[in-house]
Amino acid sequence: MKRFIYADNAATTKMDEDAFNAMLPWLQDEYGNASQPYTFSRRPKKALSEARATIANCIGATPEEIYFTSGGTEGDNWAIKGLLEPGDQKTTITTQIEHHAVLNACNMLERLGYPVKYLPVNVLGVMLPETLESVITSRTNLVSVMMVNNEIGTIEPIHELATIAHTHGSLFHTDAVQAVGHIPINVRELGIDILSSSAHKFNGPKGIGFQFIRKGTKIHSYVDGGAQEFGMRAGTESIASIIGMSVALRKSCAYMEQTQKKLYAMEQKFLNVLSLYGVDYIRNGATHHVPGNVNVSIRNVSGEMLLHRLDLKGICISTGSACDSVKTQISHVIQAINVPMNYAEGTIRVSFGRFNQESDAIEIAKAIVEILKDR
Amino acid sequence: MKRFIYADNAATTKMDEDAFNAMLPWLQDEYGNASQPYTFSRRPKKALSEARATIANCIGATPEEIYFTSGGTEGDNWAIKGLLEPGDQKTTITTQIEHHAVLNACNMLERLGYPVKYLPVNVLGVMLPETLESVITSRTNLVSVMMVNNEIGTIEPIHELATIAHTHGSLFHTDAVQAVGHIPINVRELGIDILSSSAHKFNGPKGIGFQFIRKGTKIHSYVDGGAQEFGMRAGTESIASIIGMSVALRKSCAYMEQTQKKLYAMEQKFLNVLSLYGVDYIRNGATHHVPGNVNVSIRNVSGEMLLHRLDLKGICISTGSACDSVKTQISHVIQAINVPMNYAEGTIRVSFGRFNQESDAIEIAKAIVEILKDR
Repeated sequence: MKRFIYADNAATTKMDEDAFNAMLPWLQDEYGNASQPYTFSRRPKKALSEARATIANCIGATPEEIYFTSGGTEGDNWAIKGLLEPGDQKTTITTQIEHHAVLNACNMLERLGYPVKYLPVNVLGVMLPETLESVITSRTNLVSVMMVNNEIGTIEPIHELATIAHTHGSLFHTDAVQAVGHIPINVRELGIDILSSSAHKFNGPKGIGFQFIRKGTKIHSYVDGGAQEFGMRAGTESIASIIGMSVALRKSCAYMEQTQKKLYAMEQKFLNVLSLYGVDYIRNGATHHVPGNVNVSIRNVSGEMLLHRLDLKGICISTGSACDSVKTQISHVIQAINVPMNYAEGTIRVSFGRFNQESDAIEIAKAIVEILKDR
Repeated sequence: MKRFIYADNAATTKMDEDAFNAMLPWLQDEYGNASQPYTFSRRPKKALSEARATIANCIGATPEEIYFTSGGTEGDNWAIKGLLEPGDQKTTITTQIEHHAVLNACNMLERLGYPVKYLPVNVLGVMLPETLESVITSRTNLVSVMMVNNEIGTIEPIHELATIAHTHGSLFHTDAVQAVGHIPINVRELGIDILSSSAHKFNGPKGIGFQFIRKGTKIHSYVDGGAQEFGMRAGTESIASIIGMSVALRKSCAYMEQTQKKLYAMEQKFLNVLSLYGVDYIRNGATHHVPGNVNVSIRNVSGEMLLHRLDLKGICISTGSACDSVKTQISHVIQAINVPMNYAEGTIRVSFGRFNQESDAIEIAKAIVEILKDR
C-alpha cells in the first residue's frame, strides 16, 4: 500500500467518527425543519438546543450567546461588517497577519468609506498590546485579532488586547478558527465580545461553524430573513452539521490535554530529525503556539517544490493557508514577521492532528531531508 | 404503528437516498480541502467541478456561473445587497409576497438609505408585468421577484418581468428556492441575471445552496475571504453537501415530469375529498403553480388549531412559512392576496412531495373533515 500521511490539519481535518455517526439520523429520517411547530420537529429542535448548550459549555459561554453560521469566514464577515452604522466613521483595528476572511472583510469596509488600521506584529507573530495601545482611540469601534495564526500557530495575547479595547470603549472580536477545540478558551475570562469558529478545523464537518456574541452586544444580523437563531442568522438550520460539530467539539475539549501533549511531542520529534540531519531552517511563530503547528522556513529552497515532492511521497503538508493557495508568492504572514528572503521562499507548514502518530513526524522530516539531498 | 404523514415539503424535504449515499465518502475518508494543491485534494476538486457542471446543466447555465452558498437565504442576501455602490441611490424593486430572506434583506437596504419599492400582487399572487412597468425607471438597480411563492405556490411570470427589467437597464434576480428541482428552468430563456436556490427543498441536504450569476454580471462578493468559488464566495468548500445537492438536483430534474403528474393528481384528490365532504374553502394561488402545493383557507376555523389537531393525528402540514412560524398572525402573503377575513385565519399549506402517495392526500383531507366535525 502506498504511504499516505496527512499533516495539513490546519487546512482541514478528518471527521471524528462519533461526530460522523451522530450526523446520520439527521441526514435520513429525522429531516424535520427545526422551526416548525409540530411534533416531528421536536427532536431536531431539542438536538439543536443541546448542541448549542454543548458548544457554549466548551468556551464558557451561555447557550443564548451561540449562533450557528456556515463557518469561520461567514463569522468573520459578520463581526467585521455587522457593527457599523451608516455615516458612523469609526475605525476598525486589526493585524497584518489575519486570515483573509478578516482582511478582505476589512477591505470591503474601506471600500464603503470606513477607516481600517492594520497593525504590524513582532517577529514571532505576536500582536503586542503596546502597539494596540499606541493607536487605539475613543473613535475605535472594533479591535479584531485572531486567537491563533493559521500559518505560524502563534497564540495572541487575547486577554490583554481585549482589555485595552474595552478601556477605550471598543468591542473585541477574535477569529478563533485555529484555536477552538485546540487550546482552552473561556470567553468570559478572556473578555471576548465576539468569537468566530469553524467545525472542520476540529474534526467536525465542513460548511458549519458558530459565532459567540456576548449577551448585550449590539450587532446587526448579517444574513437576514427568517426568525432562526434568535432572529440573528436566518436560514433553515443545518441540523446534521450542527450536531456533528457539537460532538466533535465536545470530544476535542474532553481530550484536549492529552492531544496537546502528543502533538507537542510530535513537533519536537519532527524538528529534532531536521536538526539531526543538518537542515538549515528557522522555526516561525512564538513558543506559545497552538499544538501541532510547525512552520519552518528552510534556507535556499522552494516551499512549493517541497510540497510537491512530498506529495509524490504520499505526504500532505502546505506552504500556507489553503484559502490562499492559488497564489504562489510569499504569504502576507511570512512577510509580516520578516523572515529573511533566502529562508522565506522555503516556508512550509506541517500541521499535525489527533490522527497523526509520532512515526508520521519522523517520516515527514526524513522525506524532507531526502528531497533536500536529491537537489 | 402510529400514522406518520409528512406533507410539509415546502418547509423541507427528506433527503434522497442516492444523495445521502453520495455524501458519505466526503464525510469520511475523502476529507481533503478542495483548495489545496496536493494529490489528496484532486478528488474533492474534481467532484466539486462535476457538481457545478451537473447543477449548471439542470438550469441551462454554464458551470462558471454557479457559486455554492450556505442556502437560499444567503443567496437572496447576496443578490439584494451585493449590487449597490455607496452613494448610489438606485432603487430596488421587489414584491410584497417575497420570502423574508428577500424582504428583510431589503429592509436592511432601506436602513442603509437605499430606496426599495414593494409591489402589490393580484389576488392570485401574480406579480403583474404592467404593475412593474408602471413603477420601473432608469434609476432602478434591481428587480427581485420570486419564481414560486413559498406559501401559495403561484409561479410568477419571470420571463416577462425580466424583460421589463432589462428594457429599463435593471438587473433581474429571482428567489427560486421553491422552484428549482420542481419546475423546468432555463435561466437563458427566462432572462435571469441572478438566481438563488437551496438544496433541502429538492431532497438535498440542509445548509447548502447555489447561486446562479450570469457571466458578466457585476456583483460584489458577500462573504469575503479566501479565493474559493472564483473569488466570489469565500470559505472552505462544503464538499459533502455540495455533492449531495448535485445528486438530488440531477434526480429531481430527471424525474420532474412524472413527479409533477403525480403531485398534481394528489392535489386534486385532496381538494376533491374536501369538496365531497362540504368543506367551505378557498384555494389560494394561481392555477399555474408549483406541483404539490395546496394552500387553502377554510371558513371560520383557525389554521393553528388545524395544524395542531392534524399533528396529533401524525400529519405534518403548516400554516405558512417555516421561517416565519414563530409568529401566529395572518401571513403577509395571505394579506397581500386579500383573502377574506373569515377565511384568512383558517389558512393551511399542504405541500406534497416525491415521497407522498395518493392515499396521503385522502387521509389528510379526511382528517381535516373529522377535525372540522369535532368542533
